[in-house]
Amino acid sequence: MKLEPFIHDVPDFPKPGVVFKDITPLLANPDAFREALDGLATQARQLRAETIVAIESRGFLFGAPLARILGLPFIPVRKPGKLPRTSLREEYALEYGTDALEMHADAIHPGARCLIVDDVLATGGTAAAVATLVRRAGGTPVGTLFLIELTFLGGAKKLGDVPVRSLLRY
Amino acid sequence: MKLEPFIHDVPDFPKPGVVFKDITPLLANPDAFREALDGLATQARQLRAETIVAIESRGFLFGAPLARILGLPFIPVRKPGKLPRTSLREEYALEYGTDALEMHADAIHPGARCLIVDDVLATGGTAAAVATLVRRAGGTPVGTLFLIELTFLGGAKKLGDVPVRSLLRY
Repeated sequence: MKLEPFIHDVPDFPKPGVVFKDITPLLANPDAFREALDGLATQARQLRAETIVAIESRGFLFGAPLARILGLPFIPVRKPGKLPRTSLREEYALEYGTDALEMHADAIHPGARCLIVDDVLATGGTAAAVATLVRRAGGTPVGTLFLIELTFLGGAKKLGDVPVRSLLRY
Repeated sequence: MKLEPFIHDVPDFPKPGVVFKDITPLLANPDAFREALDGLATQARQLRAETIVAIESRGFLFGAPLARILGLPFIPVRKPGKLPRTSLREEYALEYGTDALEMHADAIHPGARCLIVDDVLATGGTAAAVATLVRRAGGTPVGTLFLIELTFLGGAKKLGDVPVRSLLRY
């Protein structure tokens, strides 16, 4: 089953000149969503992931079902101030200014093989920040996994030696 | 399997006097997460849900796996400005001021039996706003489904004749 027909281009969103990849048609089609999750699960098994680390909030849409399918622990990475217990925080650069992500400090078993999951790899700033969070928390980032990779933005370079896997590349 | 041990109370979060229900221990335990999803799936089947409507962002953690398990369409309800296409918007009252949620205007098949999913039912303001969005989009809200219901906040009253189901009540 081809997944491309379920990803719609929305021009000029969120701002003029940007073409947004709308994944809601895929989420709304149970066969396409299942096919995407099966493909992601295959990649996760190949990387021998032991823990799923997913990035708020669209990463939750794929990371949570993946954790359930694979029977693995699920760790959420959230925007600042959302996690209730002692957290690690990592800042990353935006086009203008910075943003930050947080993870509970005790979230990861020492040495656990962590797979970082999000919907889209763009510039790689958030995924690289999460790889750093995983290392600071004592885990090993064994890969990053995306539904979509926007290869023309070169995000994979920012991830250094952490493997990048994706189902759809543009 | 008891789920209560996987929900941790965090006092004074997000502000003094509030006891926050931390669900991250449940997400981190594959057996507990599976048990919770099985329980939610049973409720969804009883309500004869045809579409899963989940609320950003913790609702995604349960709604997305549920849609996959049940083989149903998944519709995200998001904070303002996140959805790329024409959306319906519904405001709801906070303790001070208002907030809003959005859903794509064409998200729901006419008459579809929609189940609204979130992690916690507190005052019911967001769930009631989503029930209104579902009706405005042409769907039928056949129920709301939560991992946790904080019964002392009386949120179920705000949902009128839409059934409220939950796995854990405090």
